[in-house]
Amino acid sequence: MFKGRILSGMRPTGKLHIGHHSVLENWVKLQEEYECFFTIVDWHALTTSYDNTEKIKENIREMLLSWLSIGIDPQKSTIFIQSHIKEHAELHLLLSMITPLSWLERVPTYKEQLYQLQEAGKDVSTYGFLGYPLLQAADIIIYCADTVPVGEDQLPHLEFCREIVRRFHYIYNTRIFPEPKAMLSRIALLPGIDGRKMSKSYGNDIAIDSDSEALWEKVRSMVTDPARIHRTDPGHPEVCTVFAYQKIFNTERIDEIKEICEKGKIGCVACKKDLAGRMDKVLEPIRSRRKELEANENYLNDVLKEGEIRARKVVRETMEKVREAMGIG
Amino acid sequence: MFKGRILSGMRPTGKLHIGHHSVLENWVKLQEEYECFFTIVDWHALTTSYDNTEKIKENIREMLLSWLSIGIDPQKSTIFIQSHIKEHAELHLLLSMITPLSWLERVPTYKEQLYQLQEAGKDVSTYGFLGYPLLQAADIIIYCADTVPVGEDQLPHLEFCREIVRRFHYIYNTRIFPEPKAMLSRIALLPGIDGRKMSKSYGNDIAIDSDSEALWEKVRSMVTDPARIHRTDPGHPEVCTVFAYQKIFNTERIDEIKEICEKGKIGCVACKKDLAGRMDKVLEPIRSRRKELEANENYLNDVLKEGEIRARKVVRETMEKVREAMGIG
Repeated sequence: MFKGRILSGMRPTGKLHIGHHSVLENWVKLQEEYECFFTIVDWHALTTSYDNTEKIKENIREMLLSWLSIGIDPQKSTIFIQSHIKEHAELHLLLSMITPLSWLERVPTYKEQLYQLQEAGKDVSTYGFLGYPLLQAADIIIYCADTVPVGEDQLPHLEFCREIVRRFHYIYNTRIFPEPKAMLSRIALLPGIDGRKMSKSYGNDIAIDSDSEALWEKVRSMVTDPARIHRTDPGHPEVCTVFAYQKIFNTERIDEIKEICEKGKIGCVACKKDLAGRMDKVLEPIRSRRKELEANENYLNDVLKEGEIRARKVVRETMEKVREAMGIG
Repeated sequence: MFKGRILSGMRPTGKLHIGHHSVLENWVKLQEEYECFFTIVDWHALTTSYDNTEKIKENIREMLLSWLSIGIDPQKSTIFIQSHIKEHAELHLLLSMITPLSWLERVPTYKEQLYQLQEAGKDVSTYGFLGYPLLQAADIIIYCADTVPVGEDQLPHLEFCREIVRRFHYIYNTRIFPEPKAMLSRIALLPGIDGRKMSKSYGNDIAIDSDSEALWEKVRSMVTDPARIHRTDPGHPEVCTVFAYQKIFNTERIDEIKEICEKGKIGCVACKKDLAGRMDKVLEPIRSRRKELEANENYLNDVLKEGEIRARKVVRETMEKVREAMGIG
């Protein structure tokens, strides 16, 4: 018996990096306890990149490879591409009719993101960008998902979704959807190798499919404690990027590493070698599964086809109820 | 050889009135010269009536009956319900990503309608109401229609649609859609029987399927020239509601009617009887065709089914090109 139904998705905006690894590991665990729908939200990719779409298809394939190689299991979870299920667009449109403009304008992330992207030279003051949280709400409730794993920054979006559910139920005097609750993930955010937020555009990311050599190249150039000049100087792990990674990839030995660093008993290069070795061990089986998958185009297509069929079955049922409640179609 | 492709639609918000008669007569003529797509836009009905949808299905049937009985011919034209073609919602969503918010906010009718409806106690400051012209644009261009019959008030919507087409072509470096041009209809607007704008909510409308008795009841209570007190007083046809109707329904005798009214040679009651008789003659065959159709539920369903098939064939081709151009799906 499952604990509930989960919907989660990722935007295919580029190659996945090591920060996604932890998110996906969490998904792998969740699929044992929840009925999971994992979706590649290509329509969402358009909200910020409508004028740069050449790579979306490539990114989708990349994403699917990463998901499967890390252990998302199509036998257990439903894996599909958002744009293949047109009903997301239909529900989005129907919900748009009952969504106060002000609710969207007041989603805390909206103005902030708008400003940040404008600073970065991207004009996204579009109707679609404003409607982002509404499309997200449709994505979630069309599967009657009751649980959504989110980071803290996504909480306002989920609260918006819950408000839309309540409003829909109130106006049409019905109860079709659960009010999805947030499952706050306790995933530590991995910094980029320069200590800033990891982002491909900063060039400080580590690709999720890095080979041993590329991995070492990245770990080698990680910034460490700037106060530590000589190998024997005491280190300050809490400001060290390498240590942030050790916490994730070297959990069992973390106390020991902290101690020998603080006592100046291990040099940064040795510590980095240790980390790169650990990461390589984690990534190695994923890389080799990825190679197998890459050679099996038919299997990849089958996974998406099967996922689409399962997803469609659920949305058809939901949409029948929605149309009935709204007196449409 | 057709002169072009037309898309036009009506919102199923209530029973049709005699003002729609002229619009539909125009459609009947257009279908001889153009490839016509006529759609009952039920999703659009939600923009202003999302909280009052009980009658949409009934209104759709009413509308279909009116269209067919007046002479819209399913052999010549494609007749379908908007919500049956999900691709309208898909294209609407895709276009939303490239549509500047400001373009929608500046559509001249937007703020005006928002204000008028708010005065009437209707709160439509929703995301969907703001997006109305965008959904309309999707409705039109998804059929690659090049001609749209419009009243003057709809010109800004069509100009918006043309701008969206240009923007889409510019961003994706393609040329999929014609820029649809307006065909300004020279249809005289029929006033309500009290001389104001005809509207069901004013109670001054004449139902399109009125029988002889109901018709006479309405014509009898039409306001005429208030300066004319005695039967022999000279009349002022230009301010008379009856005369506005005579211009439409008594075209051949209009000069004569004008003259005898101005000379006080015909009384208002006689003039009204004359008008009611003429209108009855026009409406009688429509009423009897309507009765036949009402008894033939299967035929009505077949018309919609056939229209849906034809409409879907066109939109599938368009959407393939759109997705290809945008690199999606």
